Amino acid sequence: MGDLKLNHSVENGSASMLNPLDHEEFRRQGHMVIDFLADYYQNIETYPVRSQVEPGYLQERLPQSAPLNPEPIETILKDVQKHIIPGITHWQSPNFFAYFSACGSIAGFLGEMLSTGFNIVGFNWVASPAATELESIVMDWLGKMLKLPSSFLFSGGGGGVMYASTSEAFLCTLTAIRDQKLSVIGRENLGKLVVYCSDQTHFSLKKSVQIAGISPENVRPILTSKSDDFQLCPESLRLAIISDLEAGLIPLYLCCTVGTTSSTAVDPLGPLCDVAKEYRIWVPVDAAYAGSACICPEFRHFLDGIEGANSLSFNAHKWLLTTLDCCCLWVKDPSALINALSTNAEILKNKATEAKQVVDYKDWQMALGRRFRALKLWLVLRSYGVARIRDFLRGHVEMAKHFEMLLAADKRFEVVFPTNFATVGFRVSPSAIPNGEDVNAFNQNLLESINASGGAHMVHAVVGGVCDPTSGALDTEFCS
Amino acid sequence: MGDLKLNHSVENGSASMLNPLDHEEFRRQGHMVIDFLADYYQNIETYPVRSQVEPGYLQERLPQSAPLNPEPIETILKDVQKHIIPGITHWQSPNFFAYFSACGSIAGFLGEMLSTGFNIVGFNWVASPAATELESIVMDWLGKMLKLPSSFLFSGGGGGVMYASTSEAFLCTLTAIRDQKLSVIGRENLGKLVVYCSDQTHFSLKKSVQIAGISPENVRPILTSKSDDFQLCPESLRLAIISDLEAGLIPLYLCCTVGTTSSTAVDPLGPLCDVAKEYRIWVPVDAAYAGSACICPEFRHFLDGIEGANSLSFNAHKWLLTTLDCCCLWVKDPSALINALSTNAEILKNKATEAKQVVDYKDWQMALGRRFRALKLWLVLRSYGVARIRDFLRGHVEMAKHFEMLLAADKRFEVVFPTNFATVGFRVSPSAIPNGEDVNAFNQNLLESINASGGAHMVHAVVGGVCDPTSGALDTEFCS
Repeated sequence: MGDLKLNHSVENGSASMLNPLDHEEFRRQGHMVIDFLADYYQNIETYPVRSQVEPGYLQERLPQSAPLNPEPIETILKDVQKHIIPGITHWQSPNFFAYFSACGSIAGFLGEMLSTGFNIVGFNWVASPAATELESIVMDWLGKMLKLPSSFLFSGGGGGVMYASTSEAFLCTLTAIRDQKLSVIGRENLGKLVVYCSDQTHFSLKKSVQIAGISPENVRPILTSKSDDFQLCPESLRLAIISDLEAGLIPLYLCCTVGTTSSTAVDPLGPLCDVAKEYRIWVPVDAAYAGSACICPEFRHFLDGIEGANSLSFNAHKWLLTTLDCCCLWVKDPSALINALSTNAEILKNKATEAKQVVDYKDWQMALGRRFRALKLWLVLRSYGVARIRDFLRGHVEMAKHFEMLLAADKRFEVVFPTNFATVGFRVSPSAIPNGEDVNAFNQNLLESINASGGAHMVHAVVGGVCDPTSGALDTEFCS
Repeated sequence: MGDLKLNHSVENGSASMLNPLDHEEFRRQGHMVIDFLADYYQNIETYPVRSQVEPGYLQERLPQSAPLNPEPIETILKDVQKHIIPGITHWQSPNFFAYFSACGSIAGFLGEMLSTGFNIVGFNWVASPAATELESIVMDWLGKMLKLPSSFLFSGGGGGVMYASTSEAFLCTLTAIRDQKLSVIGRENLGKLVVYCSDQTHFSLKKSVQIAGISPENVRPILTSKSDDFQLCPESLRLAIISDLEAGLIPLYLCCTVGTTSSTAVDPLGPLCDVAKEYRIWVPVDAAYAGSACICPEFRHFLDGIEGANSLSFNAHKWLLTTLDCCCLWVKDPSALINALSTNAEILKNKATEAKQVVDYKDWQMALGRRFRALKLWLVLRSYGVARIRDFLRGHVEMAKHFEMLLAADKRFEVVFPTNFATVGFRVSPSAIPNGEDVNAFNQNLLESINASGGAHMVHAVVGGVCDPTSGALDTEFCS
């Protein structure tokens, strides 16, 4: 199937040769797209940050069917400019402040190019040894940058793997501990397993629990309060566990978060892990957003207590200059993952695997196929170096603190939660809103007018409305 | 968090500015990597196809920790050449005949570059309308190319989505039908759900079943035989279903395959779907490899009966010139997916979603984040056109048939299963092997010597050893 250079007549009559990786054509078209993207970055601030198109806009512009005959790259790039770019919300714009950002970089882009160019499917070691080995090495590098206990590193008996998403990290670790537990208590007790988190935990935890066949009713989102900065309280956790045990249920999994989505709260890992340990609960730490910052010594304390957890994940594709996607997961006990997720298909048998000399990442993840993600993170770390990356992250936090200070000095605004990292939660203060107008509606309208202007893009969050008795209504904040 | 141009002094003392998407630097380094990859393609046949490194080779060559200071791209590319390329098994080599191939192309590569360059996170429509709309449009284009019933297309009430892998297609459809069924019969009956497949079904089905919390013991791999060309037999299916019903179990899901991994067998979709329909079983069709070929009118018959199935998936990243990863799934009933997988987080609320005017793909998949995969498939379809892509696929099948003919004419070899597509299963014939030598061992040794030579890469399969009473031993084949 490999020789792509044979000549076959095409349907439209003209004999021509399709050599899909012709190196000279690759060079010509590749340079064109590099220039196209360089121009895009040069002009990015001229576009409205949030796309201003209406639903269905593209259907009206594109044909109903794929073309029968080839079209030149020049035509296609013109269409990207004319039809795709207006429908893009510009996540790489300096004026994009919505969600958690996806900080791309030249090095991340180049790493992705190399990975796409090699286009290998690194499901096991032998399918491309470099893909597996570089991933293991980079995960150890990154673990050392985070000053993780050696038990999380390959060099210390643990290990790391790159996924597409935090959801996959949840799902794989859940499957691992679920099956470990069921092998002891029997599958018929699946319905008794309980998962703990806080009401600030990202919703993908609950979705992963559900996909894993555990009842959504067995997820315990423990209430947090504004007065506790929305941290998960160890004592509340213990009470919930005791209550479940009394009801005959079985505690399984406790999700702790370092940098929650709505308020960047940091759960107290040490005390929470202490409680979990008593009940033999698996503790995954979700540092999807804020994990990156923890490579700076002054922010490392947010991970204090990590030594008691079972796994840690964070998304290098959020704040660590690595293009989408790259979720890094470390586990202390890879055998828990491997026992649950390994397969042993005849077609994949090979000497290196049988000699147990290698990591086969297919047994650490959901799917068989996998991309060579390690290249882009390797390029990021080498191209910028740890010192400059730290400085880049610090710069963002400094900007956020500066902005928070400006808000605090302006009576029209109020800051809604402490700025731990580079996310600022604020709103127009009720005292600055004309009498009779609804505070939330006023803030919502202001936010929409900013987003509709195209000049900047921010999103809202609701925090503190649930369990803080001092809060009479939901808060609507702009998070930047 | 957006303004990346502020100046911060770095740890090593020199004040310098990290602008990770500086457009001129992007241009310079991007052109370098294009040339690097063009050279790689030019020289690809000079490398051993299967990497010849030993386990642990890279650990010895790279430092133990990430560098503190930046390194120039020139140095990094030299290291890619010197340390990474020797550890790559060259999936893009014309001499790569192992597994199912991953046919990359210039257009697929360029699409991935654009997607990586924009680096948007298209979880819902508003996060980047073009990403959602182009995906829906391209999935309809591709569905029309496959002559799918309109019920699988958005234009006919169904719809399509792009995943990373067939595993995700299995997992999401399993979750959908599992939760639909449990909402009727009660969660306590999860342990009674049964999943059917054949002994030729890809192992990722069983793994997905397990992740979804269904007991692996409730997977029924129905035996196939060489005399039936390894097709799943509808009557055997019915007997298995009846037996399970008598045991008080509940049939849920039947995986049919068009082009199995070991022998490219094609299950008879029509009769199998007829049986499934009687028992209200969800039928996913896995055409991961062979689906691409079905865009050619002369191969479309392999999908006959698809109108009775509930979903169809195939990997455009295998044979349709699209770089990794791009698994295309169509479902007749998107609401089944959406009911099971939707989330409604406050932070993602927006007008377009609330007006139900748009597709939000986060509710069709496992994770929240997602890449802009549609761009690369769109570029492939436009850049080559349907006619030339068909011809490309035909060319591969013609080559395989030609090779099969050469084998058939040579008494030293035997062809082990019919060549339906571009995969040929063959071995050195027992009659050609010196007396006393083990047939499988002889073939294994020959295969290893070919792979060790670096001149070509092929893999083995075992077929026909299980249920074919005429077969005294396992067959070891080279699949190309």
